[in-house]
Amino acid sequence: MNLPHAPAARQPLPAAFAGELGARFGTRFSTADAVRAHHGHDESHFPDMLPDAVVWPHDTAEVVAIVDACRRHRVPIVPFGAGSSLEGHILPLHGGISVDFSEMNKVLAVHGEDMDAVVQPGITRKQLNAALHGSGLFFPVDPGADASLGGMAATRASGTNAVRYGTMRDNVLGMEVVLADGRVIRTGGRARKSSSGYDLTRLMIGSEGTLGLITELIVRLHPLPEAVSAAVCAFPDVGSAVRTVIQTIQLGVPVARIELLDELTVQAINRYSKTTLRESPMLFFEFHGSKASVEEQAQMVQEIARDNGGQDFDWATHPEDRTRLWAARHDVYFSCIALRPGCRGLTTDVCVPISRLADCIAGAREDIAASGLIAPIVGHVGDGNFHTVVLVDPDDDAEILRAEALNRRIVERALAMGGTCTGEHGIGFGKQDFLVAEHGRDAVDAMRALKRALDPDGLLNPGKIVPAG
Amino acid sequence: MNLPHAPAARQPLPAAFAGELGARFGTRFSTADAVRAHHGHDESHFPDMLPDAVVWPHDTAEVVAIVDACRRHRVPIVPFGAGSSLEGHILPLHGGISVDFSEMNKVLAVHGEDMDAVVQPGITRKQLNAALHGSGLFFPVDPGADASLGGMAATRASGTNAVRYGTMRDNVLGMEVVLADGRVIRTGGRARKSSSGYDLTRLMIGSEGTLGLITELIVRLHPLPEAVSAAVCAFPDVGSAVRTVIQTIQLGVPVARIELLDELTVQAINRYSKTTLRESPMLFFEFHGSKASVEEQAQMVQEIARDNGGQDFDWATHPEDRTRLWAARHDVYFSCIALRPGCRGLTTDVCVPISRLADCIAGAREDIAASGLIAPIVGHVGDGNFHTVVLVDPDDDAEILRAEALNRRIVERALAMGGTCTGEHGIGFGKQDFLVAEHGRDAVDAMRALKRALDPDGLLNPGKIVPAG
Repeated sequence: MNLPHAPAARQPLPAAFAGELGARFGTRFSTADAVRAHHGHDESHFPDMLPDAVVWPHDTAEVVAIVDACRRHRVPIVPFGAGSSLEGHILPLHGGISVDFSEMNKVLAVHGEDMDAVVQPGITRKQLNAALHGSGLFFPVDPGADASLGGMAATRASGTNAVRYGTMRDNVLGMEVVLADGRVIRTGGRARKSSSGYDLTRLMIGSEGTLGLITELIVRLHPLPEAVSAAVCAFPDVGSAVRTVIQTIQLGVPVARIELLDELTVQAINRYSKTTLRESPMLFFEFHGSKASVEEQAQMVQEIARDNGGQDFDWATHPEDRTRLWAARHDVYFSCIALRPGCRGLTTDVCVPISRLADCIAGAREDIAASGLIAPIVGHVGDGNFHTVVLVDPDDDAEILRAEALNRRIVERALAMGGTCTGEHGIGFGKQDFLVAEHGRDAVDAMRALKRALDPDGLLNPGKIVPAG
Repeated sequence: MNLPHAPAARQPLPAAFAGELGARFGTRFSTADAVRAHHGHDESHFPDMLPDAVVWPHDTAEVVAIVDACRRHRVPIVPFGAGSSLEGHILPLHGGISVDFSEMNKVLAVHGEDMDAVVQPGITRKQLNAALHGSGLFFPVDPGADASLGGMAATRASGTNAVRYGTMRDNVLGMEVVLADGRVIRTGGRARKSSSGYDLTRLMIGSEGTLGLITELIVRLHPLPEAVSAAVCAFPDVGSAVRTVIQTIQLGVPVARIELLDELTVQAINRYSKTTLRESPMLFFEFHGSKASVEEQAQMVQEIARDNGGQDFDWATHPEDRTRLWAARHDVYFSCIALRPGCRGLTTDVCVPISRLADCIAGAREDIAASGLIAPIVGHVGDGNFHTVVLVDPDDDAEILRAEALNRRIVERALAMGGTCTGEHGIGFGKQDFLVAEHGRDAVDAMRALKRALDPDGLLNPGKIVPAG
């Protein structure tokens, strides 16, 4: 398999380091093969790469102790959330220790009146929303996978309803972060806005564990909408579906979700989730608001869809129908993977200005056809973001090269259209060339200067985001 | 007058530097006293402090030439927008050159379908909205003053309708920035979201000219709402007005603006703007949306206001009434200043979690009463942000000390409540102690490390935000 940036020669874990952490963490420190294997595997197409050890901290002081030991022994540190990353973020390119935050998953405070919560980074979005049950509030960011909030912040995740509620960038108010030198800082705060100094919160969001370890998050919550309704609509072709999206956004309709699935994705869903959707390009909609506002939004969108040739506009006002529909949408990644047993997915993630979305998707479809690969398309199209899940045989190097070439063509087109190589999955180590193509060498040099300022020894998730200088 | 951080000894402007810039910029380079005086004065209470020279670039290449000359001659660089800063950002503490962006004020592109625009930094928000006339789109961020967009980005400004449309952080998609070493970088881009590398855009927003010079901005535009309505409502006391705000926000009513004015502010407005508002605490509301949604929002808020003792709920559905009302609100700073001829305003700017807003304002009112100073209160209360405009005699040092002590008490209370020392005005050089109190010494050290990484010679607006290490 082609690794764009081959891992450096790994140093064995110093015995004194293992002894020190073993003594402090007991069974919460492990070098067992099965444990390491679990932490050397994510949802990307990259081959597994095992850390030398895994540790499960319970609080900030323990994270500081880990960072201090790593600094003294020069051991690379790779934070680990739920392992649902798609760009190899959790793969220890230079070896080192995987810091698994899954046991730091407490809700520390819910401030209902202020609509915020203070949480530990290992909590998953489903765990948080379960804890909020009955409060009238919810946490909206939903990348599909039941990812951890720390991981979602580290990759600047978003997902299906970012079009209405924003991304992690918009929904994290502040953080506690352990820096590479072991110092613990607080960034941001509980005020809704602030002009107080450099925006360290936003610098950490999307930094993929390379600038600090997130040990606490203050997140925004939103009132559960009074009314929710969902709809699906089939279209004769992808272009008409995308035109419907563009017109909806331009009219200012505050849709909560607006998702495109191409015909192959709908087939995959029908097969995997036992649904009976018409196998043509579809849009899934969700509307949030007061009863009157939801009706008004839905009516406007229905008219737009009809003007664009939409058929079978179908309501799902009962919660159970809605849940089934969105459960199917959430399982889309696994539905796609199931189209070809034994395969892995190489997922593209471009995002373009919405006026270019139809052309960008049409170009991607031509590229897919020319490549001979199987690659369903699904997208958070309200933001101009779409994915192709390129199904690859992990043992077929030639096919992986073809899939990477396809990804490159899709990215180059998106960049030429003023878009980004990654809307929500991050750079990891697979997209570093695209990072330079997108921002230019000087901007990436500025990123490297920031990295060196905060992590001079290069121990925090080394090899991710910023390519070696 | 008390300067918290006294300016360092100034070096005279090197003759070779003046010669070089004079030769290149002709009459667009000046060392004339009147020009320097204009650039050594902002809307803060700080005494004037003149730059050694002023230059007016017309494009990015000229900004690069200025930065290169400054680097070679070690001349400090202070960017200047509209001069409406309230925290001394444009005052050249260490001398140097004021870079006036007012002649870089072009709209470079409007992408109507994508709802974004590319502009030069010297354009003011009114200039931009005038240029957008007829497009069906507008730029929403409105700090009151007709500030430049570059200056607004540099201070992370917001204002009256941030509660609905967000702050500059949310409305700038990308930038072109000239770094201290003269390199030009592009940050962000036109895609609505991205996970591509460190968020340099958000790092520059709020950096007050200390990390780079903004030479271009990509800003989000919003569809002009189909319907707009405004209302004012008088309350028996500030507490009932604030309770109305809290309940409105917690119900999720998407108000576009919700502004508090205390009775003294209303008196000031009546006197200055010849209005006849009832002289008691008031809320000004504005609602944006479809006709049905605006009516629904207004009805909900009217009910909440009535439950809290609101009186004289008064509609202003005619555009001219609305304009008069909001013009009066926008002139509130000058209305307050006019309460005491010859005075200057020391404006506090705390922002707290909304559950603490009533207590925070009540405490501030007690502090004002105890201080014997005149200080009307006005606030963007939907975000938990409010200002007191403390009217001071600029020649009375003792009074200025009392005003600063009052500000300190208000800030300390806000910090104790989980708030920030500045919701939207920035740190400048007057609030550096508060920056440390708010974020802690270690977080400020991290900011200092970032500053050194991007500006190792310390020539970019030296003395602002990060206190000397």
